[in-house]
Amino acid sequence: MEHTEKTLSENTIFTGRIITVKQRQVQLENGRQRSRELVLHPGGAAVLPVDEDNNVYLIRQFRAPFGRTVLEIPAGKLEKGEDPLAAAKRELAEETGFSAAHYFSLGQMWPTVGFCDEIIHIYMAAGLTKGEIHPDEDEFISLEKYPLETAWNMCMDGSITDGKTLTAILKAARLLKNR
Amino acid sequence: MEHTEKTLSENTIFTGRIITVKQRQVQLENGRQRSRELVLHPGGAAVLPVDEDNNVYLIRQFRAPFGRTVLEIPAGKLEKGEDPLAAAKRELAEETGFSAAHYFSLGQMWPTVGFCDEIIHIYMAAGLTKGEIHPDEDEFISLEKYPLETAWNMCMDGSITDGKTLTAILKAARLLKNR
Repeated sequence: MEHTEKTLSENTIFTGRIITVKQRQVQLENGRQRSRELVLHPGGAAVLPVDEDNNVYLIRQFRAPFGRTVLEIPAGKLEKGEDPLAAAKRELAEETGFSAAHYFSLGQMWPTVGFCDEIIHIYMAAGLTKGEIHPDEDEFISLEKYPLETAWNMCMDGSITDGKTLTAILKAARLLKNR
Repeated sequence: MEHTEKTLSENTIFTGRIITVKQRQVQLENGRQRSRELVLHPGGAAVLPVDEDNNVYLIRQFRAPFGRTVLEIPAGKLEKGEDPLAAAKRELAEETGFSAAHYFSLGQMWPTVGFCDEIIHIYMAAGLTKGEIHPDEDEFISLEKYPLETAWNMCMDGSITDGKTLTAILKAARLLKNR
């Protein structure tokens, strides 16, 4: 059965640098009205770099919502109208210094469908060439290298919690190691 | 290297039924100031029900941010101070009618660490007993049953995109089928 709801009215609460917050009044299938809180986000691209020895490269950066550093795959938000793969290549270069000969799509991850329209496009990058790291001048990140097997264990044992990173490593491990 | 940043000031933009939106002024490691947009969320619990034949049960519901239905594991937000496992049991009963003899933690998933503090606690439920479905009166959901193998293929081929659902199925498939 296909479900739907009807938008009755909508107003913009906040327009920020990254997110826009809206409040929407909707009519449900039973005719009742309800208020929805929506966060609009431009979407993002994320990339898991894997070298020829099956090592993966993760970054650690301070994340304000958690008040601590988080271990993640390189990622960034899409510029307006930007191709997700182009964004993935840019973020990989900025945050790790790598360029890659091959990119494989690991699909989309929709982080939090209840209130936010963000879509993260995930890639795996192989055939890595190391260049200079040149992060955004206001980004402070550390690069960490792990065997894919170790990263996979860190997903399974709870050491890795970031959503896009879980999806990327759990999928890539299956593709690369027949896991 | 451990990274950090210093909060200089913070103000609340919006206090909704589910989310709170804040804007924070911070000082970075290089001394420069930057504005952060933060969405505060109470967190959630999600649960993958698996029966004795290795079928999993997913729900399909309309999701306003995407303007369409999305296939997901049963889930809901935490009430204030609520134990995540208690929330998982409640959502499983409300959305599928199942109760379960056994619950296994599949860890935490942090959906979108850049701007939101949401933590989703993920469980697998086994030893299912079917009861009555009694969803929240304003929820409209359909229950769908898939062999775990099929659900896993739907994760790998891009048919399943919801973040918590990807994490749950990719982890459970490994645990249950030695995948």
